[in-house]
Amino acid sequence: MATYPEIIETPYPFQHLLGFQIVEWTPELVEIHLPLHEALGNRYGIPHGGVHATLLDTAMGFAGCFTGSQENTRQAMTLSLNVNYLSRPKGETLIATGRKIGGGNRTFFAEAEIRDETGELIATSSGTFRYRSA
Amino acid sequence: MATYPEIIETPYPFQHLLGFQIVEWTPELVEIHLPLHEALGNRYGIPHGGVHATLLDTAMGFAGCFTGSQENTRQAMTLSLNVNYLSRPKGETLIATGRKIGGGNRTFFAEAEIRDETGELIATSSGTFRYRSA
Amino acid sequence: MATYPEIIETPYPFQHLLGFQIVEWTPELVEIHLPLHEALGNRYGIPHGGVHATLLDTAMGFAGCFTGSQENTRQAMTLSLNVNYLSRPKGETLIATGRKIGGGNRTFFAEAEIRDETGELIATSSGTFRYRSA
Amino acid sequence: MATYPEIIETPYPFQHLLGFQIVEWTPELVEIHLPLHEALGNRYGIPHGGVHATLLDTAMGFAGCFTGSQENTRQAMTLSLNVNYLSRPKGETLIATGRKIGGGNRTFFAEAEIRDETGELIATSSGTFRYRSA
Repeated sequence: MATYPEIIETPYPFQHLLGFQIVEWTPELVEIHLPLHEALGNRYGIPHGGVHATLLDTAMGFAGCFTGSQENTRQAMTLSLNVNYLSRPKGETLIATGRKIGGGNRTFFAEAEIRDETGELIATSSGTFRYRSA
Repeated sequence: MATYPEIIETPYPFQHLLGFQIVEWTPELVEIHLPLHEALGNRYGIPHGGVHATLLDTAMGFAGCFTGSQENTRQAMTLSLNVNYLSRPKGETLIATGRKIGGGNRTFFAEAEIRDETGELIATSSGTFRYRSA
Repeated sequence: MATYPEIIETPYPFQHLLGFQIVEWTPELVEIHLPLHEALGNRYGIPHGGVHATLLDTAMGFAGCFTGSQENTRQAMTLSLNVNYLSRPKGETLIATGRKIGGGNRTFFAEAEIRDETGELIATSSGTFRYRSA
Repeated sequence: MATYPEIIETPYPFQHLLGFQIVEWTPELVEIHLPLHEALGNRYGIPHGGVHATLLDTAMGFAGCFTGSQENTRQAMTLSLNVNYLSRPKGETLIATGRKIGGGNRTFFAEAEIRDETGELIATSSGTFRYRSA
């Protein structure tokens, strides 16, 4: 449950296509859930690495753009994304959590990780982002 | 057109979901095409960074797994993926090209880039992969 | 002070050149200290980014090679290193801490960060490594 | 030999400590040479990964800061650095080449690689940088 449920936006197209939900968006944390389903499978029948990258990039980008307001939004573009693939899911839901760890008024740094509901650490990431001009 | 058209596999689920095609898979190069469509859009209406990551990861993974044979396939898992986002597409198709640049019999290194049909350089990547045991 | 002081090795040449010390090496954590001095300065008179990369790579590599024994050592090679530069030091000592976060018997994943003695977060990193054959 | 030898600066402290030379700095390319010597050795007696990171970061940073003038310099800070370690040197000199591949007036993207004089590809990198305010 989001601490600021009123700022959770309507899913955008790619979010809708993959089926993930932004369940928490606070100054400290972004949390995203994605129930696994067959359409996310790669050549080996396990979730494609692009799925993880999508969730991690999203969690980090939102983490740097929190304002707490629907009118006064902040926007950012990813400059660089690094993803490490540690394990494959044992459960049925990917849970990505992201947080901003530094930066200024032009660029920011963030980290994120993906676990499943069993706690298995599946992927980690870091990223650099730049704010879009208002 | 693929130099080895007979080894191009049936699209797997996530490939089908996004709509990309592996149009070339040779010892030197993998090329993937993705016609842009609305369902790939992010919060700002441009292709989500996860789309780029998906194409780049795929192009690099395939680049390290070429065997030229449908019976004797090779499989790999991504260890680490680094993506740089340089520009946004001016055209209507994302064209990813990947190639293996080093490694041994356990791990390999690859690079890839995405341009559109106008030649605009949109994203670059590098990755480390490990071969799956037979 | 190291929990396992007896396994702290004699500084190797590059370690001696830069002047860093491995002050802790346990199953959970590696900690490295580097007193800042002029010879580490870049074109702008602040520590060169290669200094941070050196400490982070070292902290992560050692973190994956702990055995607790001087006779039975483990060795690893870096496959991929990602470093994010968040801030510049306000204090006089770089303090790098690294830990292993996953992997198997062939490869491992690690994370590290650098703070100074004021607590300022200066750089973060992740890396993938492969174990050298015995 | 540099195309613009007059803009090659006096080595800064860390450059002097490691012993590398910027031998070319043009709008298209930066080339750096480092004769290998014992003081660069790691725990295994081969060049420490931090040495490669230093050269790659330097080559990329300079690549984005070319102005062709000694009076009107441009300065940049590394945001993110990704290094892949492909092989170890067979020769006696590390040769790093870097080039800018994109960006705008606030941030830029660059790539670099290290070979030795035998042509062996030893390491590759990409990085994101931000320009320092004048």
